[in-house]
Amino acid sequence: MKAKVHITLKNGVLDPQGKAIQNALSHLGFGGVDEVRQGKYIEIKLADTDPAAAKQRVSQMCEKLLANMIIENYAVEVEGEGALVRP
Amino acid sequence: MKAKVHITLKNGVLDPQGKAIQNALSHLGFGGVDEVRQGKYIEIKLADTDPAAAKQRVSQMCEKLLANMIIENYAVEVEGEGALVRP
Repeated sequence: MKAKVHITLKNGVLDPQGKAIQNALSHLGFGGVDEVRQGKYIEIKLADTDPAAAKQRVSQMCEKLLANMIIENYAVEVEGEGALVRP
Repeated sequence: MKAKVHITLKNGVLDPQGKAIQNALSHLGFGGVDEVRQGKYIEIKLADTDPAAAKQRVSQMCEKLLANMIIENYAVEVEGEGALVRP
């Protein structure tokens, strides 16, 4: 079973890496880019067979390790289950 | 208009960062994790109004700057347009 995790910076948290990408795009001639925000995307292959339990477990992984809950949000998607978004 | 870009390592390319996450999860007591792959997730706000043209432009940004096409794949999603996946 595969889980997809998106970790993004909370609104209002500065993103210097995104800003650097935006500047680089502008130097390359890509205009009209209003904002760039960079986050992480993590794919996890799990031995679990119950999608709901898997989602719950991946959510715990996010809180304990993958995301810094002070400045980041996470969203977990598991095949066959709706997304769990934790802003 | 918002574009969402996923940049992932191609199959077969080693992912030491993913491996480190997998080990850390195991040390934290999360068993049954078969594989972890880490990629990048980039959100781009564009001034474009035509979704098809925006997708094309973001795809060029990926090829020129955001993705290393030797070892990475990218996928572009634009609101109101299907995903463009470039393996």
